[in-house]
Amino acid sequence: MTGTATRPAADQPQAAPTGGPTGAGDLLALDPAAQDLLFRAARTANTFTDEPVTDAQVRAIHDLVRYGPTALNAQPLRILLLRSPAARARLLPHVSRGNRAKTAAAPLVAVLAADVDFHERLPELFPHQPRARDWLGDRAERVAQARFNATLQIGYLVVGVRAAGLAAGPMAGFDPVGVRQEFFPDGRHEVLLLMNIGRPGPHAWHDRLPRLDAAEVITTL
Amino acid sequence: MTGTATRPAADQPQAAPTGGPTGAGDLLALDPAAQDLLFRAARTANTFTDEPVTDAQVRAIHDLVRYGPTALNAQPLRILLLRSPAARARLLPHVSRGNRAKTAAAPLVAVLAADVDFHERLPELFPHQPRARDWLGDRAERVAQARFNATLQIGYLVVGVRAAGLAAGPMAGFDPVGVRQEFFPDGRHEVLLLMNIGRPGPHAWHDRLPRLDAAEVITTL
Repeated sequence: MTGTATRPAADQPQAAPTGGPTGAGDLLALDPAAQDLLFRAARTANTFTDEPVTDAQVRAIHDLVRYGPTALNAQPLRILLLRSPAARARLLPHVSRGNRAKTAAAPLVAVLAADVDFHERLPELFPHQPRARDWLGDRAERVAQARFNATLQIGYLVVGVRAAGLAAGPMAGFDPVGVRQEFFPDGRHEVLLLMNIGRPGPHAWHDRLPRLDAAEVITTL
Repeated sequence: MTGTATRPAADQPQAAPTGGPTGAGDLLALDPAAQDLLFRAARTANTFTDEPVTDAQVRAIHDLVRYGPTALNAQPLRILLLRSPAARARLLPHVSRGNRAKTAAAPLVAVLAADVDFHERLPELFPHQPRARDWLGDRAERVAQARFNATLQIGYLVVGVRAAGLAAGPMAGFDPVGVRQEFFPDGRHEVLLLMNIGRPGPHAWHDRLPRLDAAEVITTL
């Protein structure tokens, strides 16, 4: 994921340590090719080819990742796709300088937002608990829940874009209030992240940055 | 994911519409078996067998999902595994009544937290921008970034648990302040979610709840 800093580009993505015969990947049920596609060889792309990302591809991605779990099955993530040059032009002033050129050039840009009034759908989405909607009368609590669950769904979406053989370019370097005011003037959405989507172009990748080891992340009691 | 409500259990997981020959899964590069393993046939489990989840399995899951992207490569997710009966007993009073029995019985329970002082690691994790650490002097801003990026990582982790052939049981029904005070008295962590992990046991699944269609989630400009 990219913020506002710039880094030297690499011509080829660096492979992560293999999950193959001698690696930890042997303990996984997911086959090594899929491990590479989704995580080990997948990278945040910073350039893209001109090949379009079709609506059918986006629907296929959604049809896969919509099965990921969310609390109360609330599914608050909403996806605004910017295809037209006019729509793209409305976004760019709110994007940090370092992200602007690639966002202008990407085949597709997704604005990822959370629907703060997701509770209105709960009678359909969580039907065995008819009172669930009423638990969420407090807007501040809904904002927190919407942000949390939509962010989980963005995690699934990154995996889904890669499952389609595409590269995701998630970007946190933008003004979320400005984007909200521009594209969601109804006030019922919170903008969480931007994501460029496409096939990687020339010099698409920076060098792979270090990852924390299990011992630095996991504690057992 | 489960909150506090109870629902009737199903003996077998309901299959989601196939991603097969006539489905949208054809547009994906990920093979259909992997689509099923990670999303279409994967379900939030509510019961588990006694089969242990080993430390080696957890390390293999982490070794896969740690390559998922985070802003500034910050990787703020921290995983506290509760194995011992004594540790589990400290958690249960903070878990909602409906989640308590399954959390007591699960082979492994993970407390998923965000390290609010993640910026201390940025000189190693984002070395090309030595000032990144200094951008994050404001604690409130760090809390927001830590929560967001650790939640993205939880999305990857759900996929990773399933990639190991295990079932995840994420739970939002607990008192995050109580769990934080019990397990993270240093005050530098925010507790985001609990997750039971194991092999599904008898009556592990509720019926699959409805998912939103693409037309309800995706807008194009």
